[in-house]
Amino acid sequence: MKLILLSGGSGKRLWPLSNEARSKQFLKVLQDEKGNSESMIQRIYKQIHKSCPEAEVIIASSEAQSDSIRRQLGSQVEKVEEPSRRNTYPAILLSATYLLDKRQVPEEEVVAVLPVDTYVEQDYFDKLQEMEQALLDAKANICLLGVKPTYPSEKYGYIRGRELTDKSYGLVADCVEKPDLQTAQKLMEEGAFWSGGVFVFRLGFLKKLIQKEMGQVSFEQLYARYDELPKSSFDNEVIARTQSMVFVRYDGEWNDLGTWNTLTEQMKEADGGIVIRDENCKNTHVINELEIPIVALGLQDTVVVASADGILVSNKHASSFLNPYVEQIHNRPMYEKRQWGEYKVLNFAKCHIGRECSLTKHMHVEAGRSLSYQMHHLRDEVWTIIDGEGQFLLNGEMRKVTRGEVLYIKRGQWHAMASKEGIDFIEVQLGTDLVEEDIERGAWDWGNIL
Amino acid sequence: MKLILLSGGSGKRLWPLSNEARSKQFLKVLQDEKGNSESMIQRIYKQIHKSCPEAEVIIASSEAQSDSIRRQLGSQVEKVEEPSRRNTYPAILLSATYLLDKRQVPEEEVVAVLPVDTYVEQDYFDKLQEMEQALLDAKANICLLGVKPTYPSEKYGYIRGRELTDKSYGLVADCVEKPDLQTAQKLMEEGAFWSGGVFVFRLGFLKKLIQKEMGQVSFEQLYARYDELPKSSFDNEVIARTQSMVFVRYDGEWNDLGTWNTLTEQMKEADGGIVIRDENCKNTHVINELEIPIVALGLQDTVVVASADGILVSNKHASSFLNPYVEQIHNRPMYEKRQWGEYKVLNFAKCHIGRECSLTKHMHVEAGRSLSYQMHHLRDEVWTIIDGEGQFLLNGEMRKVTRGEVLYIKRGQWHAMASKEGIDFIEVQLGTDLVEEDIERGAWDWGNIL
Repeated sequence: MKLILLSGGSGKRLWPLSNEARSKQFLKVLQDEKGNSESMIQRIYKQIHKSCPEAEVIIASSEAQSDSIRRQLGSQVEKVEEPSRRNTYPAILLSATYLLDKRQVPEEEVVAVLPVDTYVEQDYFDKLQEMEQALLDAKANICLLGVKPTYPSEKYGYIRGRELTDKSYGLVADCVEKPDLQTAQKLMEEGAFWSGGVFVFRLGFLKKLIQKEMGQVSFEQLYARYDELPKSSFDNEVIARTQSMVFVRYDGEWNDLGTWNTLTEQMKEADGGIVIRDENCKNTHVINELEIPIVALGLQDTVVVASADGILVSNKHASSFLNPYVEQIHNRPMYEKRQWGEYKVLNFAKCHIGRECSLTKHMHVEAGRSLSYQMHHLRDEVWTIIDGEGQFLLNGEMRKVTRGEVLYIKRGQWHAMASKEGIDFIEVQLGTDLVEEDIERGAWDWGNIL
Repeated sequence: MKLILLSGGSGKRLWPLSNEARSKQFLKVLQDEKGNSESMIQRIYKQIHKSCPEAEVIIASSEAQSDSIRRQLGSQVEKVEEPSRRNTYPAILLSATYLLDKRQVPEEEVVAVLPVDTYVEQDYFDKLQEMEQALLDAKANICLLGVKPTYPSEKYGYIRGRELTDKSYGLVADCVEKPDLQTAQKLMEEGAFWSGGVFVFRLGFLKKLIQKEMGQVSFEQLYARYDELPKSSFDNEVIARTQSMVFVRYDGEWNDLGTWNTLTEQMKEADGGIVIRDENCKNTHVINELEIPIVALGLQDTVVVASADGILVSNKHASSFLNPYVEQIHNRPMYEKRQWGEYKVLNFAKCHIGRECSLTKHMHVEAGRSLSYQMHHLRDEVWTIIDGEGQFLLNGEMRKVTRGEVLYIKRGQWHAMASKEGIDFIEVQLGTDLVEEDIERGAWDWGNIL
C-alpha cells in the first residue's frame, strides 16, 4: 500500500500563526510524549511509520512548502509538488499520475490518501490495513473512514450507510456534505458517521478518472496542464459521484486541528513565549511569538495568539469563525522560515513623497547555509552585520565580512551571503516595490566555503 | 489663588501605554466635545482655564516630563521640576517654596493643589472658589474636596465630618486612609466622603511646614537637598496630622483615571488603531498602537491594549489589579516621544559570544528639530536614511544628507542631526551596553539651519 499525505494550503483559520508562507501543519504547537514540541505533520509522519514501518509515503504539497517539509521531516521525504494550489481533487490526481508514470506503480496497488491536519491516536493508523482489506474483500471502488460523531457538527461531511454484521466494514449508502445544525443533529441520531477525509482505492480506479478528465497523460503533461483541472475537492468530484463504496468505522480519538478551539484542546502547555497571567485565567491559552510580554488577567475560555503578522484575542468558541475577519487583512508575511534561515520584518515606512518606501528586516542565515545569488531591479539594500561572520559575494567578488561591517548593494548588483557558523544582519531595503517577488536568481558554487 | 497641578509619576496601572518615559496623563485616550483626542493633562488644563481664565497654574513635574508638557500644553507653561521623584509631600513643599522664593507670592495667598489624573465635569473647578471661601471663612488650615462616594471603594481615602447647615462647607472630623472593603462599606453608610486629592491652604501654612522640616531654605537649597525629604504622600505627612480642616462637598461626576477599568468608561471610541472585531464583542475596548492588526472575537468586559512595550489582555475588573504583574517586567522603554521627535525600538539581539549586542531603532526627527550634539562611549551606530533630508554633524563637520545615505558613527565620535523638513533613519547600535544613559551631550549652534 502507498500512502499519499495531503499537505494542505495556507489556511487562515489558525491566523496569526498560519499565513501564506506558513501552513498550520508546520506549526510546532503540539508536544510529543517527552514534552518536545512538534508539528502536526511531524506527529502524523511519525505515527505512520510506527504503525507501518515499511509504508511508502508521498507528500502532496506546494513548492512553497518544500523548505518546511525538508526542515521538519528530513530531505529524504518523497514529495509531489503541485504547480499551483487548486484543492484536493487535482492534488490527488497529480499524485496518482506520479505513482503510475514516474514510479511505475501497478494499477492493482492500493493507495490511501490521508489529511495531514488530524490529531489522532495510534490506532487510527491500524485502520489503514483494515480499509485495504475491506476494499479488496468488497471489491469496492473506494473505502472511507467513518468517524463516530461526538456532537452534531456543521464542519464535517457525513457518511450514511449500513454496517455488516459479519464484516469489519459497512456499505456506504450516500455521503452528505457539511450540513446545517438541524440536519447534523438528525444525521447523528440516524447513526451517520463523520467522513474522516481518508480515501482508500486501487490506483487503477484513479487512472480511469484521470483518463476521463485529461486523456492519456504523462506526469509532465498533467503538471503542465494542471490549471485545467477544476478547483474542487475530491469529495465533490469523486465521493459524491461514485457507486460501490464501503467504510470502516473508527471510534477512537479524532480531532481536526483546524481551529484554535480544537487545537488548544491538544496543547499540553497553556502558554508559549513571554506570558504573565494571573490565577483567575480559566481555560485560556496564550501563545506569544513576539519579543514583548503579554499580560493576561482574569480571562475565561479565551485564546490569545500574537505573531509578527498580528494579534488574535478570541473567545474559544468564536475562534472557529475567524476566517472572514482575517480575510480583511492583506498584509505581506512579516515572518518566514526559509531553507537558508529566517527573516522578520521590523519596519515598513512610506516616504513622504512619491512611491519610494523602505522595509527593514532582521535576517538570520543558519550555519552552513547561504542566500541564493540574487539581484533586485527595484531596490537598494543596506546590510549591517550584527552577529557572526560570512562570505559576502558582490558581482562575482567574494570577501569575508564580520560584525560591524556595512554592505551597500545597489539595484542591479548580484549578491549573496554564505556562512559556516551563521550570520545575522539588519537589512534596510530602499526602493519602490519592496516585495519578495522582485528577485532574479543565479547560480554560484560555494565550493568548500560551506 | 494659585493652582499647583501635580503631574504624577510613571504609574504602571495603565501599562502598556504608560511606562517610565510616558506617564498616563499624557496619553491621548480621551476625546473632547469635537471628537479630537486629548490627554488627561490637556483636558484638565483646558477646564481650569475655562472656569478660572485668570488662574495662575504651576505644574509640578519631573524633568523627564518636560518635553511632553511643552508638547501638549505649549512652551509658556510654568513648571517646577522635581530633581527626583519622591511622592506628593516633597513635590508640594518644593512648589510652595518656588512660589514663596522665586515668585515672591505673599504668605496670605491661597493655593490649591490638584491631581492631574481625574476625569471631572466643569463644575468641579467652580468648587475651587468655594473652597477658598470656606478656608478663609472658617479660618481653617486646609480645605479638602469631599466627593460623594458611588460605591464602597478600597482605592480612596475617606473624609469623616459634619456638614454645617448654615454654611456651604463642613468640618472635618478625621481622615481614613484606603480602607478594606468592609470598612469602606461602613464609611459609606456613615455618610463619609472620598477625599478628592484637592488641597487648598494659605501659602503661609506650607511655609511653616517647610521651616519645620528643613529650616529656612531658598528654592535652590531645597532643590539641592530634595532627597532629604521623606518619600511620602501629603495625605500621610500633613492631612493625617493637621487640626482644623474643612471640606467642600462635590456631588458631580468624578473618576480617577487610574486603571483601564475606569479609563475605558470615559473613552468615546471603543477601538483605537488597527482593530477588527466581530459583532459579539460586548463592553470591550481595544487600543492598538502597533502596526499589525488585532482581531477581537466574542469578547465580553475585556480590555486589550498593545504597544511597543507589551500587550495587555484583561477582564476589565481584573485590570485594576495590574500592578504586581507589570512589576515583573523589566524591559527598557520601546517607544519614546522626545522633544526632537520620537523613536521606536525595532529589534534587540545578543551576540552569540561575549557581551556584544545590537539594538535597531526607527528614528524620526521632526521638522525644525535637532538631535543634541552627542557622543557614546560603548557603541558604534549605523544610520541609514530612509526618508527626508537633514544636516549631519560629525566631529564638528556638517554636511547635507538625504534618503539612501549610510552614516557610520564610531564610539567616541561627536555627532548630531538637524532637519528643516523632518528626517527618518534606521539606527543600528553595536556595542556592549546599549542604554539611553550611554550619552555625553555637548552644545552646537545650528544657526540659520533650522
